Amino acid sequence: MPKLNENFLRLKTSYLFSEVAHRTAAYIQANPDKPVIRLGIGDVTKPLTKSVISSLHEAVDEMASADTFKGYGPERGYPKLREAISAYYAKSGVEVDPDAVFISDGAKSDTGNITDLFAHDNVILIPDPVYPVYVDTNIMCGNSVIYMNGTAENGFLPMPDHSQHVDLIYLCSPNNPTGACYNKAQLQEWVDYALKNEAIILFDSAYEAFITDPELPRSIYAIEGAKKCAIEFCSLSKTAGFTGTRCGYTVVPKELVFTASDGTEMSLNAMWNRRQSTKYNSTAYIIQHAAAEVFTDEGMAECKANLAYYQKNARLIADTLTELGIPFTGGIHSPYIWFECPNGMEAWECFDYLLNNIQVVGTPGAGFGENGKNYFRLTAFGSYENTVEAMNRFRKLFAK
Amino acid sequence: MPKLNENFLRLKTSYLFSEVAHRTAAYIQANPDKPVIRLGIGDVTKPLTKSVISSLHEAVDEMASADTFKGYGPERGYPKLREAISAYYAKSGVEVDPDAVFISDGAKSDTGNITDLFAHDNVILIPDPVYPVYVDTNIMCGNSVIYMNGTAENGFLPMPDHSQHVDLIYLCSPNNPTGACYNKAQLQEWVDYALKNEAIILFDSAYEAFITDPELPRSIYAIEGAKKCAIEFCSLSKTAGFTGTRCGYTVVPKELVFTASDGTEMSLNAMWNRRQSTKYNSTAYIIQHAAAEVFTDEGMAECKANLAYYQKNARLIADTLTELGIPFTGGIHSPYIWFECPNGMEAWECFDYLLNNIQVVGTPGAGFGENGKNYFRLTAFGSYENTVEAMNRFRKLFAK
Repeated sequence: MPKLNENFLRLKTSYLFSEVAHRTAAYIQANPDKPVIRLGIGDVTKPLTKSVISSLHEAVDEMASADTFKGYGPERGYPKLREAISAYYAKSGVEVDPDAVFISDGAKSDTGNITDLFAHDNVILIPDPVYPVYVDTNIMCGNSVIYMNGTAENGFLPMPDHSQHVDLIYLCSPNNPTGACYNKAQLQEWVDYALKNEAIILFDSAYEAFITDPELPRSIYAIEGAKKCAIEFCSLSKTAGFTGTRCGYTVVPKELVFTASDGTEMSLNAMWNRRQSTKYNSTAYIIQHAAAEVFTDEGMAECKANLAYYQKNARLIADTLTELGIPFTGGIHSPYIWFECPNGMEAWECFDYLLNNIQVVGTPGAGFGENGKNYFRLTAFGSYENTVEAMNRFRKLFAK
Repeated sequence: MPKLNENFLRLKTSYLFSEVAHRTAAYIQANPDKPVIRLGIGDVTKPLTKSVISSLHEAVDEMASADTFKGYGPERGYPKLREAISAYYAKSGVEVDPDAVFISDGAKSDTGNITDLFAHDNVILIPDPVYPVYVDTNIMCGNSVIYMNGTAENGFLPMPDHSQHVDLIYLCSPNNPTGACYNKAQLQEWVDYALKNEAIILFDSAYEAFITDPELPRSIYAIEGAKKCAIEFCSLSKTAGFTGTRCGYTVVPKELVFTASDGTEMSLNAMWNRRQSTKYNSTAYIIQHAAAEVFTDEGMAECKANLAYYQKNARLIADTLTELGIPFTGGIHSPYIWFECPNGMEAWECFDYLLNNIQVVGTPGAGFGENGKNYFRLTAFGSYENTVEAMNRFRKLFAK
């Protein structure tokens, strides 16, 4: 009998979104006259931008003629797109070699698949609360993880414990689900810690496009020394509404070279290239062609207009919570707003309270880790009208 | 210091295609007046079909409007496409539950990622010669593999050794690179072996669309008992020219349930669903929408017209080799023709001989395994005119 990977038995089944859907559906059935507003959605709602659409059509036409048809593409992705991403970094003053950029179908795949490059006896540090993929993919391949606590006290931005040695560190900033965003000094401390401990930071910057303050780092490579200790994952999902169009990119600097037990020098850039060319065949040409359009001046201006719509919603939620004296993080440089459940409620209790009293659906923080058990996540991806109405209901419910 | 995955050091660097390119370029530079014909190409050359193109445009338009925009899709793939694939199987008399079908970006990804489901102490059997991804992905995750020989004696279709126990068996039929195709009795013997040994067959049917004889199985599920012992990988790359458009599918029957060491029943369908929903975010909506079009009557008729073009080239090569008395496999139910190097030449010697004497470039069989060291692969993906000219040159060179 084949031996299966029994690490799968250690994975927790997440009932988070199905339980949310189940309770919401039951409420609606019992109360068909009460309009429910969903502010739990983690997906974009604005369509693709004009220039992306016309670029997609253009690429489809290329596929219709033998002269311009594209078969298998370059394994790292088309140079045009890798260079456009490099130039996008340069606009924030960050230098990234196009040959360090690998195109993929999304940051989720890459943050998961990156475990292929490491042995299974590293000390792996993951924040709690956080996007569940980091933990699940490590459990799946038999790794052990340790956690660092995101709490109200540290603004959900845990910092290094200098008395502790770790090998791999997952950071997500702006964070999913808390919306909290590290500043330069904080990331410098992480990079310094990593350099000193010869650790690698796995930096998820999928929400970087929501950062509006030019002082906040949008990339780990804005930090001195990061190229010697960090891999960065990013995505067009939120930047350009590509959640259903699928394109991401991962930066693996050529500086990341470590010595194997037999003394061989191993380059993580070369290893990732080998991993991707063996187990992936790059992203569809049509998608890559349109993704390059996102990084043009026109493309980026259009994306920013969409982001501004979500940012307005986020700010409205943040301002309402401030007004009501409800402590929260996020909402400024993030589409997520993470608030402390009022009146000492637990997360699922708060879910039922909001649903029953004001018919607003969000996501219980308990689904993102132990430290989320008294927290609740709202998102900015609803319509402006619904967000206004939901916040009016919040004001009535929580007014002192 | 992080411990890297040192299994990467055990991977052989393949110089196959770079060495082919290097020798070809050097020849052209030295002999600019001699027109070289490339019959080594493993990629399709015909553009996407009319109905796929119009379906792609249609889906792009859907992404332009908030009402029809698609964000994150269902994790297994859109039901429409999964049902279309199930119906495609039904046309060959094979019943496949749409819920056993998982959409991906290609068979290469899935044949690689499937290693995630298994422990690392299985006995893994892989044919030689074969598509290098099976071996490389197993080495990458620390597995050991054993080989079975494809030889002229068994028509490059190795059969089970009933005295030997194995846990996982990779089969590729029609085979890459040999073009050889198992018949029903042969696959039945494999399935019976797998059932008796409680082994799992990992069946790569990426070239099934090239099979023209209705008596030859296009799916492992055409074989009695296969749903209890086989996972099948397929792709639109060759069927519909999707090498640069990226869509594949994997069938994991719900019947595949095994008992873990603690007695828990583990379903491979549930495990693959968990793997894919954790480390993949499904295929772009635009691509899935167009992929469904491939399986309509009109879409399939168009694909068959493209396949007929390649099949005509393949047949021409096969007929020429027959005429010249050069032993070969493939060329009938496959775009690949695998021939024995004439005059006892070794594969690279044959490469140079063909290049220097008749300016035809192919792929030395040595790149696909030990048993390819006296073999050579040609493909049917060139133009008809070039294929005719190359075969005329073969006739002159090898005429007795």
